[in-house]
Order: sequence, then structure tokens, then C-alpha cells
Amino acid sequence: MRLRKKKWSSEVFEQNDSIIINEFDKLKGQWKNQFDRKIIRLEIGSGKGQFWHQLAIKHPNDLVIALEKDYTALSIALKKMDAYENHGNKYFIYDNAHDLSEMFAEGELDVIYLNFSDPWPKVRHARRRLTHDSMIAMYDKLLSDQGEIRMKTDNQGLFEYSLSSFTRFDYELIHVSLDYAKQDKDHKQHDPATEYEEKFISQGLRIYQAVWRKKNVK
Amino acid sequence: MRLRKKKWSSEVFEQNDSIIINEFDKLKGQWKNQFDRKIIRLEIGSGKGQFWHQLAIKHPNDLVIALEKDYTALSIALKKMDAYENHGNKYFIYDNAHDLSEMFAEGELDVIYLNFSDPWPKVRHARRRLTHDSMIAMYDKLLSDQGEIRMKTDNQGLFEYSLSSFTRFDYELIHVSLDYAKQDKDHKQHDPATEYEEKFISQGLRIYQAVWRKKNVK
Repeated sequence: MRLRKKKWSSEVFEQNDSIIINEFDKLKGQWKNQFDRKIIRLEIGSGKGQFWHQLAIKHPNDLVIALEKDYTALSIALKKMDAYENHGNKYFIYDNAHDLSEMFAEGELDVIYLNFSDPWPKVRHARRRLTHDSMIAMYDKLLSDQGEIRMKTDNQGLFEYSLSSFTRFDYELIHVSLDYAKQDKDHKQHDPATEYEEKFISQGLRIYQAVWRKKNVK
Repeated sequence: MRLRKKKWSSEVFEQNDSIIINEFDKLKGQWKNQFDRKIIRLEIGSGKGQFWHQLAIKHPNDLVIALEKDYTALSIALKKMDAYENHGNKYFIYDNAHDLSEMFAEGELDVIYLNFSDPWPKVRHARRRLTHDSMIAMYDKLLSDQGEIRMKTDNQGLFEYSLSSFTRFDYELIHVSLDYAKQDKDHKQHDPATEYEEKFISQGLRIYQAVWRKKNVK
């Protein structure tokens, strides 16, 4: 869904200039040193930002980076900055996910979040899905040992596709829920909610969740 | 669910004596030669037998073996013999699945079916689930290269558990459906229906299906 342009977008960008990372190529391999954090969490496709803001609060010691290619969505996410407690641990990259290796070095990421990603249901568009084999191969290089990929979606087809895709790589499915909304909120695999998720749950739609962990392959 | 004993059970057993395999240990490693078939399909927990009868019709050239530990269920399955076309390719073992290696040699099985298996929802009973790691390790030894395990269930918890279990082994999830009843009946991964399945679908319950294929590990 394309969002309507906001006239205040450019102003919000300027106000939050310090947390938008433009020269990510210079940080590649240096993120943890530069920001003095031990763990990096990356949300790919952060949309309107609620998840990102809440994740940064949940993990105040970790570096929490949002990646979003939609200018308007990003501006909405940034507009919410003042509404959330800020531990100085959140950053934003305004770009798509197709060449993450320009941004991050091998083994530099610890957790990747894929929330309600575009399903691209047509077979001829399968390469655009964020869990296409080519994308998983890229994540795999960038993830640390025992790094995790955490997915939530309402889209049955994308979820089925993703469950299959990961079995072609060395990942253990350490948790899966086929009805996430019914899962106990105190469950150790519970993650913050996105704006979409709240809407879908209020409509009674099923939400699916999967957590894959990179295996130690000898 | 325990079935009520039938007074005609022993009679049905006698009538079908030729297809009940008692001395399976003598057939171990010899099934394909003995019955002159190239492919063996084994249904573990065949219940009242509708699936088994229909599977044997669907694959008239393959050896189709049903395993069932419940005497009454087995007698109901056998009572249906005359109702189905018979290609002389179906056999029955009256036993449980806990030591399949007494029955089959390494690599002797081609397809294993797990239909609506007992979910054993309590954690302390996890070892009894047919997709417990110890069971998958056993299937893995008995399956041929690229052998398949095909599962259907209405039980969300058992399905989630099974999706995770298989990622600890070298299996590709070549197909998964989170709403099998809505899947096209002509879909190439469609399998015959069990008695339970027809009842569950008529009640509007979701059926889950997964097909795992053994990887060629170098």
C-alpha cells in the first residue's frame, strides 16, 4: 500500500537528521564499535515505525536499526520519535533491502525482523519476496553465529513459502506459531506489535510467527 | 479415541489372514523382492483404513503397507476390503511404530504417511509424538534417498512441533499447506482423505499438511 505524501515529511527528516544513516558504507563492519553496542537488531521494512520504537525500548542496550524504502512511511515513523522513551539506540536507513552487504559486514547482524512483508503472491514476482532463497543467502552471510531471523505475517501463502525456503538453509525453526494472537503475551518469543498487526488482529485474521536460528555447521 | 470392540473382529482377521504380516522380521530387507514392487509406502497409524485402501488404488504398482496398533481399528479397516478395488498391493502390520527397524531395513521405505496422529499435547508425553526427534531419526535411517514423509493433522500444536522437529534433520519441506481443505483437489500434493479428515472438514476445522523430502547430503 502506497501512503499519501505528507507535507511535513521533509521537516521531520531534518529534525531527525542525526538518526538517519546516509553513509552506511562507512559504517560497514564498524557499527558495533562506532555505537558501542554488542548486539545489532535490524528490522527490514519498518513501515510506520511502531515496532521499531517499541523494540528499541525492549532492548535498550542493543543497536536497533530500521530499514524502510518508503519515504512517507519513514517520515511517519520519525514523527513518532517523541512519543516513545529514547535510549539513544535507534537508527534508520532510508533504502531497500536488496543489497544489505553494502551496509553490513559478514556476521555483523544478530537479529533480522521481517514483519508483514509484501507477499508478492504471483510466482513471477517470487524473487521480490523477502524470504526468497537469494535473500536468505544474503541474510545468512550477514548474520552472526546463532543469529536469528524473526518473521510475522498475516499472509498464509508467504508464510508457507517461507517455511519451505528456510529448510534449504542451515536454520533451525526454534519457534513457530500458527495463531500468534492467541499466544501468551508473556511468551518468551513475543515481539512488539506493528500497526498492521493490531489492525489485522482486530479484524480476527490469523497472524503467523516463525523464529529461525542459524545452526552451528561444522 | 478407543474404539468399542466388535464381535466380528476375529472373524474378519481370519478372512484376511493373507494380507496381515506377522513375521515381518523375515521380510526385513526383502519386501521389494518378495512382493516384486519397486516402491514401498507405509502409513503409520492407519485407523479405520480408508486412506490406506484409497492410497493402494492411487498407486497400484507400489506396495502399500498399513501399520496400526489398535485391534478394533484394524478389524474395521479389514472389513472394508471388499468395498475397494484391489490390486493385490496392500498389506497390514498389527503393531505400534516404536521399533520399525525390526520390520524394515535401512533405506527400504520410500514414503511414510502420518495422518491425524495422536497429538500427545503434554510436554511430558512429547516422546510419544510420531514426530519426536527420536522417531524422525528412526524414519531417516529407513527412508531411501529422497524418501518422503507426508503428514496431515488438524492439531495446530502437533503441526507446529513437527515443523520445528524436522529442521533439526536434513529434510527439505517441499510442500506445506496451512489450510489443506482449500487446496485444489487436483494439486499434485493431494493425498486421499481419512475418516477423521472428512469429519473435521465438515466441522470447518483447519487441516494442515506438510511434505518433507530427505536431502542428498554429501
